[in-house]
Amino acid sequence: MDVKEMSLKLHEEKVGKIEVASKIRVANNEDLSLAYTPGVAEPCKKIHENKENAFKYTAKGNLVAVVTDGTAVLGLGDIGPEAAMPVMEGKSILFKEFANVDAFPICLDTKNVDEIVNIVKAISPTFGGINLEDIGAPRCFEIEERLRKELDIPVFHDDQHGTAIVATAGLINALKIVNKRLDDIVVVINGAGAAGVAITKMLNSMGVKDILLCDRQGIIYSGPHNNIYKEAMASITNKNKRQGSLEDAMEEADVFIGVSAPDIVTKDMVKAMNVDPIIFALANPIPEIMPHVAKEAGASVIASGRSDFPNQINNVLAFPGIFRGALNARAKEINEEMKLAAAYAIANLVNDDELNAEYIIPNPFDKRVAERVASAVEEAARKTGVTRR
Amino acid sequence: MDVKEMSLKLHEEKVGKIEVASKIRVANNEDLSLAYTPGVAEPCKKIHENKENAFKYTAKGNLVAVVTDGTAVLGLGDIGPEAAMPVMEGKSILFKEFANVDAFPICLDTKNVDEIVNIVKAISPTFGGINLEDIGAPRCFEIEERLRKELDIPVFHDDQHGTAIVATAGLINALKIVNKRLDDIVVVINGAGAAGVAITKMLNSMGVKDILLCDRQGIIYSGPHNNIYKEAMASITNKNKRQGSLEDAMEEADVFIGVSAPDIVTKDMVKAMNVDPIIFALANPIPEIMPHVAKEAGASVIASGRSDFPNQINNVLAFPGIFRGALNARAKEINEEMKLAAAYAIANLVNDDELNAEYIIPNPFDKRVAERVASAVEEAARKTGVTRR
Repeated sequence: MDVKEMSLKLHEEKVGKIEVASKIRVANNEDLSLAYTPGVAEPCKKIHENKENAFKYTAKGNLVAVVTDGTAVLGLGDIGPEAAMPVMEGKSILFKEFANVDAFPICLDTKNVDEIVNIVKAISPTFGGINLEDIGAPRCFEIEERLRKELDIPVFHDDQHGTAIVATAGLINALKIVNKRLDDIVVVINGAGAAGVAITKMLNSMGVKDILLCDRQGIIYSGPHNNIYKEAMASITNKNKRQGSLEDAMEEADVFIGVSAPDIVTKDMVKAMNVDPIIFALANPIPEIMPHVAKEAGASVIASGRSDFPNQINNVLAFPGIFRGALNARAKEINEEMKLAAAYAIANLVNDDELNAEYIIPNPFDKRVAERVASAVEEAARKTGVTRR
Repeated sequence: MDVKEMSLKLHEEKVGKIEVASKIRVANNEDLSLAYTPGVAEPCKKIHENKENAFKYTAKGNLVAVVTDGTAVLGLGDIGPEAAMPVMEGKSILFKEFANVDAFPICLDTKNVDEIVNIVKAISPTFGGINLEDIGAPRCFEIEERLRKELDIPVFHDDQHGTAIVATAGLINALKIVNKRLDDIVVVINGAGAAGVAITKMLNSMGVKDILLCDRQGIIYSGPHNNIYKEAMASITNKNKRQGSLEDAMEEADVFIGVSAPDIVTKDMVKAMNVDPIIFALANPIPEIMPHVAKEAGASVIASGRSDFPNQINNVLAFPGIFRGALNARAKEINEEMKLAAAYAIANLVNDDELNAEYIIPNPFDKRVAERVASAVEEAARKTGVTRR
């Protein structure tokens, strides 16, 4: 059996991947009187006096909703909320396994931005955090932005920030190998969806001065042809106002980061880059260029989204620890400082003496990662004053 | 420490009562490739081809949302969605303990009927059933009615039907003791909220011909002073168009069922009833009349909501098995036949040779109950053709 058949079999045998478990025994009337009526009235009253007590007496403070509308699921696209469920359950069990966060899938049967915002707000009393997942661009940007403003619990669109954080962590270490600096490089990012936009924003805020963001039409440049999201990107990228194709963009560039489509980068495009090119080909399962092909073309450091090559850029390095840290701090949001702290925590797990072109980022199953990320995120939350306690 | 302090301590120590657990190990890259990418794409595709496959490959078929707006929580009233959470978590762990149903609290920050209906519809792809809980009357009636029509999974307001089913089960057996028949008795029901209305409907559909439903204004009677819900009740009760107080209603009545307020029935009111009066004083924690007082006044069979007296009418006898049966059948709804089947299954667990005035209903911890209820409900679902398989 191949992976496809084995995965189907596993899902059918287990009938899904999550269950709701009880932390309390209910075996007799006394148990019942404490966990349920009449005793349960007491925590209810305490929370009615002060809503913050929900963090003390209920599971809220460790519960994260994994919210999707099923419009951008894996590489499958808009397959609907029912079909998105296996991915959301998968995300939920990763939250649990890697950081003991209790995550629960909320698959929404609507694509309307106002409705999604209102629904997530309405269900938020149950949760200590909201992880947005597989919601198509540009709707994901507005949804996250509005929820961040209107809720006092962390809201985090993993397809944006999770990917940006892990890619950034990898880039920090890759630059050490080729001895280049963030403020001195040209970065080409291909794919202007959730991940591409977030990577662009993050690198920009870290001081990368020359980013060329490309979509299917080529290099994004400022002009009335853009929607507001694309124009916002144009305004922080492309400092020389270049127009052209991805191929044009890559000439003399130092770094290529692809979050786009299979097999769209050729050997020649890599050869046309600056000395010691860095290639992050993150399209999954088939990257923009296969790692061994990029190597043959002269790439110095290569990362992909795959576990069967070195340097896997995998979101699981970030999201469990980020939420763990945010929840531990009872943070009201996940801000830029917390995301940067996560990126550096991941990068710093690779010591200088371990660092090499085939080891720029920890393995996803490195047990230290979630804990280190959580501490760094919690500390950043405290420093920036967004915590409840 | 008393129950109040012990309950607070328990909730604080455990930080709530539920957690989300994984049914699948994720310890290495191979596990990850089956539970998550790339393998997870296969069940996604199967569900995209046919939504019904969600029951096969995801947890949906065993997941029940416990939905509240926090407006009618225990005897505490409208305490809000955050403060309702301990009760919803309690309900969730009872679902798990008694019938292995994975129930998850959804506490809604809105009281608007249209919004609640739309939100529950929108989140329904995740769930195999909806348990409505502690939503105030009359809003609960419209919400349930609309959701039942618009969703193809079971929707069940436990405060209505759970209570009605268990009270009916008790009454079936109580009548055997006093040798009276359902179609030959006068029943006074005090309290015209969720429970009172549902008990009235259920007894009416079982052939009880003379029900007097009372609220704070006394006996409900037909007239333009009623809202639509009250008028609907007037139309199926009070066949002699009586007006008067609860005290008036109880004269010569055979059965009193209280789902109302503490200490509002006196000894004299019981004495004024027909021979062999049956008293179900279900207000909790303080009943309409204390069981020993009702006994002194001559009541033949007495039930209450309390575990420290005989004959506890406890919803936990019904809801776990009802959802278990409905989910086992992949039922699209919980219809009247399924509710009646549950009531008779509960009543029939007390054998004729065990039956006596102090044992008309099984103990909530009687392990046989959920299983028997589930079988009876599943069978009724199949007979009435509301199943998926």
